[in-house]
Amino acid sequence: MAAVTYEHIKTCKQTGARLGRVHTPHGVIETPAFMPVGTQATVKTMSPEELKAMDAHIILSNTYHLFLRPGHELVKKAGGLHKFMNWDRPILTDSGGFQVFSLSDIRKITEEGVQFRSHLNGDKLFISPEKAMEIQNALGSDIMMAFDECPPYPATYEYVKDSLERTTRWAERCLKSHARPGDQGLFAIVQGGMYADLRKQSAEQLTSMDFPGYAIGGLSVGEPKHLMYEMLECTTPLLPTGKPRYLMGVGSPDALIEGAIRGVDMFDCVLPTRIARNGTVMTSAGRLVIRNAKHADDLGPLDPECSCYTCTNYSRAYIRHLIKADETFGIRLTTYHNLHFLLELMRGVRQAIREDRLGDFRDEFFTKYGLHDNDKGF
Amino acid sequence: MAAVTYEHIKTCKQTGARLGRVHTPHGVIETPAFMPVGTQATVKTMSPEELKAMDAHIILSNTYHLFLRPGHELVKKAGGLHKFMNWDRPILTDSGGFQVFSLSDIRKITEEGVQFRSHLNGDKLFISPEKAMEIQNALGSDIMMAFDECPPYPATYEYVKDSLERTTRWAERCLKSHARPGDQGLFAIVQGGMYADLRKQSAEQLTSMDFPGYAIGGLSVGEPKHLMYEMLECTTPLLPTGKPRYLMGVGSPDALIEGAIRGVDMFDCVLPTRIARNGTVMTSAGRLVIRNAKHADDLGPLDPECSCYTCTNYSRAYIRHLIKADETFGIRLTTYHNLHFLLELMRGVRQAIREDRLGDFRDEFFTKYGLHDNDKGF
Repeated sequence: MAAVTYEHIKTCKQTGARLGRVHTPHGVIETPAFMPVGTQATVKTMSPEELKAMDAHIILSNTYHLFLRPGHELVKKAGGLHKFMNWDRPILTDSGGFQVFSLSDIRKITEEGVQFRSHLNGDKLFISPEKAMEIQNALGSDIMMAFDECPPYPATYEYVKDSLERTTRWAERCLKSHARPGDQGLFAIVQGGMYADLRKQSAEQLTSMDFPGYAIGGLSVGEPKHLMYEMLECTTPLLPTGKPRYLMGVGSPDALIEGAIRGVDMFDCVLPTRIARNGTVMTSAGRLVIRNAKHADDLGPLDPECSCYTCTNYSRAYIRHLIKADETFGIRLTTYHNLHFLLELMRGVRQAIREDRLGDFRDEFFTKYGLHDNDKGF
Repeated sequence: MAAVTYEHIKTCKQTGARLGRVHTPHGVIETPAFMPVGTQATVKTMSPEELKAMDAHIILSNTYHLFLRPGHELVKKAGGLHKFMNWDRPILTDSGGFQVFSLSDIRKITEEGVQFRSHLNGDKLFISPEKAMEIQNALGSDIMMAFDECPPYPATYEYVKDSLERTTRWAERCLKSHARPGDQGLFAIVQGGMYADLRKQSAEQLTSMDFPGYAIGGLSVGEPKHLMYEMLECTTPLLPTGKPRYLMGVGSPDALIEGAIRGVDMFDCVLPTRIARNGTVMTSAGRLVIRNAKHADDLGPLDPECSCYTCTNYSRAYIRHLIKADETFGIRLTTYHNLHFLLELMRGVRQAIREDRLGDFRDEFFTKYGLHDNDKGF
């Protein structure tokens, strides 16, 4: 029995979006799902209890960051990441690949793996597919990601082709060296940049191996949104219907809906937590910058249609005061709201699929949110 | 009927410490009590629910800070400080005097009041006794403090005498201009520096007026602790037994116990929250600096004898990781622990008074905590 399985509930007749459940050793994820990001074994500013109160089913944590600090051996000694951070629901750990390429200054890619310098202290480090498995096996996440290269955008056809082929070979090595397949599900990552035929090549190579789930990587890296949707449209039909599909690094409200419509089941992004720390929140009427002077005397909630802890108990004026005064509680309140907003959005998406009306749901949301085409939004 | 009254329950036969209750419009404070400080309408990093979970009976907020930002008029418009910050238990606001003298660069004291420049933007501002009442009446705190001058340490006899006499005249003006005596109790502040006869003069002048409570100010300003205790010993006997006594700015565990023994009912201090943000915690075995390398692999709690949320759920290794990684949740956890530690200490103090054994309790605590005389401690 695989550690991670997908249960398909229904397909939206209006859009083709999938309603389902991902079963993991630490519980069930209702899909389509948004996963809050807890990079360093904590979702910034939040407690596990708060994440449960907003009914997050799963969180994501970062292999690269935990490898550097506090080290996967310590987390293993603590009984795994769940116990270390006091979170008993599912955890997905990424592969470390994206961070190696985006955060470290100097790196050298070989067939064996990637040599790089720690962005914290300059230490020379090396991650191979086998090392990525060792780290994630130590962390004990429910869902692990195969080590991959995420090519930059734009990149030449030749570069992307070479890269995805290496990523395929790395995925095979990950599968072989994964030590706990009964406890942790390993997902492969489809690459291929913005080239439809390379996306096809990557998907075909990876689906020829038996992974319990597939991610779509290398999108939302600076390309226009219509190109992202195009790539999704030529990728998801190639993925097995009986396994979950995860679109990495996507979390703007419009892209979550559009992604679900294109057959994606799982999403993650730092967007809601990151913009919250700058005092920007998502509301049913669009984006709101709480620092703006016009909110100084506003005793209404961030979003009159929101039922979250923040909107139930605090005014825009109070939250603006806290953020202007550099008070941590201010960003706790905006973070809580933004995460709740996206989780609530996904509850709405799931309900709309259930009712075969996700297309209508999208149109209503876009109109209200002030979006008119797919390239707008956050 | 006064807004704030003191109910005496019993006096410790071993020490003379008082067990009591302060009744306020927003509920009862069991005394001796420690009050967490919420300078800018928030106890740094904490939610109101967390403060209730650790059973804080009252918090303190700062008149000076709220006057500057967001302004008392806005707080009044929001329905008062309780509603603004979502805290429905008692609130004490200080007079603003201490901050005017300690935070603002340029100030000029006249009989009328104090002219100073905002530490935020340099604005020229003025607070008089009448203004301090206007601000605190707008904030709607349960307990207000009369506007006072807190002289520096050391200060000459002449300076302190002139200052305390002006503070007395200001207290009288506060009493006269207090607009909501039925809703808010106004406490006077005994000054007098480190001069026993001036403490006596101040106490006598202020107790000749009818305040519902008295604070002891101008202590814990840099003097050795034995001098602070000496000043307490010559002040508290002069205060009416039927009214609460509040020692301002004191919050080290040893001084809380020693203060209670000398007849103090209420205390406040930024110490627990401030040191928590540097990663220092108070434990039953003394102080602990979580950043120290020796805690890196320690999977035990901050304090094995503590039952707080932090100690129940998280290890030293995890908390150290969070603080080293600049994660807000780390200082949430240390702040929670430190506040819980002092509130639990005060529960112990109250129980010891109930059992006529506060002297024994002090000796046991000091031994365990590694303190041997009154000048040690935090």
